Amino acid sequence: MTQHSNTELKPHVGLDEAGIAEVLQALQEQPEALDALLTPLHPADIADVLESLPRADRRVLLEHIDQEHVGDILAELNDGVREDLLAEMTPREVAQAVEELESDDKADIVQELEGDQQKAVLRILRDKDSKKLATYDPETAGGLMQAEVFAARRTSTVGDVLKQIRKDSGDLPENIGTIFVTTSKNELVGTVSIPRLVKQPLRAKLEDVMREDPLKFTPEAPQKDVVDVFEKYDMHNCAVVDDKNRLLGRITIDDVLDVVLEDREREAYRAAGLDETEDLFAPLHETAWHRFPWLVLNLFTAILASIVIAFFDDAIAQLVALAVLMPIVASMGGNAATQTLTVTVRALSAKQINSKNAWYLLRKEVLVGSLNGLLLALGLAAITGVFYNNWSLAGVILAATVANHLFAALAGYLIPILLKKLGKDPAISAGVLVTTVTDVGGFFVFLGLGAYFLL
Amino acid sequence: MTQHSNTELKPHVGLDEAGIAEVLQALQEQPEALDALLTPLHPADIADVLESLPRADRRVLLEHIDQEHVGDILAELNDGVREDLLAEMTPREVAQAVEELESDDKADIVQELEGDQQKAVLRILRDKDSKKLATYDPETAGGLMQAEVFAARRTSTVGDVLKQIRKDSGDLPENIGTIFVTTSKNELVGTVSIPRLVKQPLRAKLEDVMREDPLKFTPEAPQKDVVDVFEKYDMHNCAVVDDKNRLLGRITIDDVLDVVLEDREREAYRAAGLDETEDLFAPLHETAWHRFPWLVLNLFTAILASIVIAFFDDAIAQLVALAVLMPIVASMGGNAATQTLTVTVRALSAKQINSKNAWYLLRKEVLVGSLNGLLLALGLAAITGVFYNNWSLAGVILAATVANHLFAALAGYLIPILLKKLGKDPAISAGVLVTTVTDVGGFFVFLGLGAYFLL
Repeated sequence: MTQHSNTELKPHVGLDEAGIAEVLQALQEQPEALDALLTPLHPADIADVLESLPRADRRVLLEHIDQEHVGDILAELNDGVREDLLAEMTPREVAQAVEELESDDKADIVQELEGDQQKAVLRILRDKDSKKLATYDPETAGGLMQAEVFAARRTSTVGDVLKQIRKDSGDLPENIGTIFVTTSKNELVGTVSIPRLVKQPLRAKLEDVMREDPLKFTPEAPQKDVVDVFEKYDMHNCAVVDDKNRLLGRITIDDVLDVVLEDREREAYRAAGLDETEDLFAPLHETAWHRFPWLVLNLFTAILASIVIAFFDDAIAQLVALAVLMPIVASMGGNAATQTLTVTVRALSAKQINSKNAWYLLRKEVLVGSLNGLLLALGLAAITGVFYNNWSLAGVILAATVANHLFAALAGYLIPILLKKLGKDPAISAGVLVTTVTDVGGFFVFLGLGAYFLL
Repeated sequence: MTQHSNTELKPHVGLDEAGIAEVLQALQEQPEALDALLTPLHPADIADVLESLPRADRRVLLEHIDQEHVGDILAELNDGVREDLLAEMTPREVAQAVEELESDDKADIVQELEGDQQKAVLRILRDKDSKKLATYDPETAGGLMQAEVFAARRTSTVGDVLKQIRKDSGDLPENIGTIFVTTSKNELVGTVSIPRLVKQPLRAKLEDVMREDPLKFTPEAPQKDVVDVFEKYDMHNCAVVDDKNRLLGRITIDDVLDVVLEDREREAYRAAGLDETEDLFAPLHETAWHRFPWLVLNLFTAILASIVIAFFDDAIAQLVALAVLMPIVASMGGNAATQTLTVTVRALSAKQINSKNAWYLLRKEVLVGSLNGLLLALGLAAITGVFYNNWSLAGVILAATVANHLFAALAGYLIPILLKKLGKDPAISAGVLVTTVTDVGGFFVFLGLGAYFLL
């Protein structure tokens, strides 16, 4: 969670494309107007503007920004743009900027720095919390955690805690939400929400009013589990403890929301072989180079399909209709497989597939695939028969389409399950595999049947 | 937000595939063991089990569930499964089940009922809040809102409010979070968080300690804007007001998290022409029928590509290599276009494309596409030249590949921008269009160049 140092800054809702364009125009044409435009903006809005700027312009804009807001803005930027800006800052500038941030935001930024810069910044900061937090894998509960928690002993009274909140001069997390109740050895034993606390008699001990046995994570817990638990049980705060149940920190729901939004972005990007941290305004060659490997991978899968076609070049030379129709059969199989794959990947992720229903679901996918395959095949065969006035060709395309749909259902269902068993994330790697298999399969079965029955 | 009537129920983290399978096994083999398995489970966990069951088994399981938990379980189920169960319940059963739910969960369920059942349930409930909430579009702030808010007059003192919280016997929302400060006409003028409240002197008036001018939405605001604002400004609660600024309700961050997770699901499903509310265990014909239209649409786009190929059938008959190589050119263009499309759709959604940088980004995409296209084309041309020992053919595939990559970059960038200008959601509709265009374009340019230069 980000707390902004200057409470006067109000969210500036509605900095839309036009608002951003206005800032860009000022930047190019009358930089002296920039201050007036930027001053009322929330750091998150300034981050949006920075992300919409070519790299050189970002540095110009940064010079117009109040030093005390740079940390908040860095915390809001996406990774690619942040990296670009951090690379230009001295360790002292970075340390100054992040000093007032919360431990989790600070740790995220420190984690992104290059080796030497990182060491230098940590030396200046002398901040044990962020140093420790920066060592956790960002994809785990530890990576999501912040060290700022409000913990109180089980023997404290409600009155003690309220007094502590009243006396606080800014050390407590602004959004306390939940008080974590601990033993004298800092072991977590319960939680009390602030509204619940207010309702209790002042002399009551926390151990008598707390909810016992709260949910908690160890730092190693995968991020996905954290998201699932927050969603499922409508939690707002959750403790992170070490293997001896000692309180290390907490995870707040706003950080979980950020993680889910980033994940969504990442899924969309990865499906097209892109890096979600990529800066829209990265230099040409950098962008091209990042996109290249996935294109090469796909080139090889396309060549694989072509090798199958080349195998039947005599058949094609004799009956060109085979070449005309073969992409239809292959692409239909790919589409059906994508549907099965999507359903299977989501069901796996929701833990809906288990030993008791795996066979039922396989049978269902195969039947759905065959049924739709048959309907589409009948339509396609009719069109082919009429167009070419060749009903043997129509028969071949009918058989090939049904066979490829069956094959597509099997591939779309079994490949993600197999990948999961092998410990891979099917959401990322299954797509290319499944479409390659149905492409190759589609060409092979159609051209094979054609060569066998029509020539 | 869902509050569970029985506070004894603890989240049962770790009901994994094996745990669910255990329940399924008991269901089939020893139903008498079910009660012991189900009693300790949280409603959200029981909902998970129900979603993993074939339809008939769900009814059996429901009979083993305590009546007082049915409402909570319904609130946690996904739409398809919930619809299935609601259809079997009488209006009185539905009304009883949802009676104790919060207004937003109640409204969601009421909204899903069929016309007559809905009327009957609303008649039994006599609940103005949920009746009203059920009229809002689920994709808006109104659809996300709950009527339960803690509002207090601007002239009330901190002591008054704390007294009210202490006296509360369960009418206040459990997670109060924020107190909304209003005028005597119920107009929203500020907010006070509970920790902030606790810190203030008891005699202070709310109007002197509140944060003025809070962010708020009208019920018509699109859900996407709500998500953006919660994410951007790390909000936990936000007011919904009518057009006269009168407080109607609030949106809480846990509901925003749910919405984002549902959206992610929907995006993944829609991209494959699937309905995200689809029940994994829906009957075969229902599932097949839901998937059919998208397959038909894709069949027609595949036929379109085939028509282009058919146009060049003489050329193919003379030089079969054209048929072997044409899918490579087409699929490479499709892949490059998908990358540009993904980047463009996300940038549009993040409002990063505006009148000032649209040309810069178009030029960048075209250059990145051409550069990668050229590299891949050189590799592909070399392979072709060596394999066929035909360097004119290699020249043609080189030119066609570069041209199709250029075309792909234009299509991947311009089609989503055009769709957005037309008021369509590019995330949903652009994919099919872009790949069709690059497929057709790829076949046309490769076969066209081949027919012109090689025969």
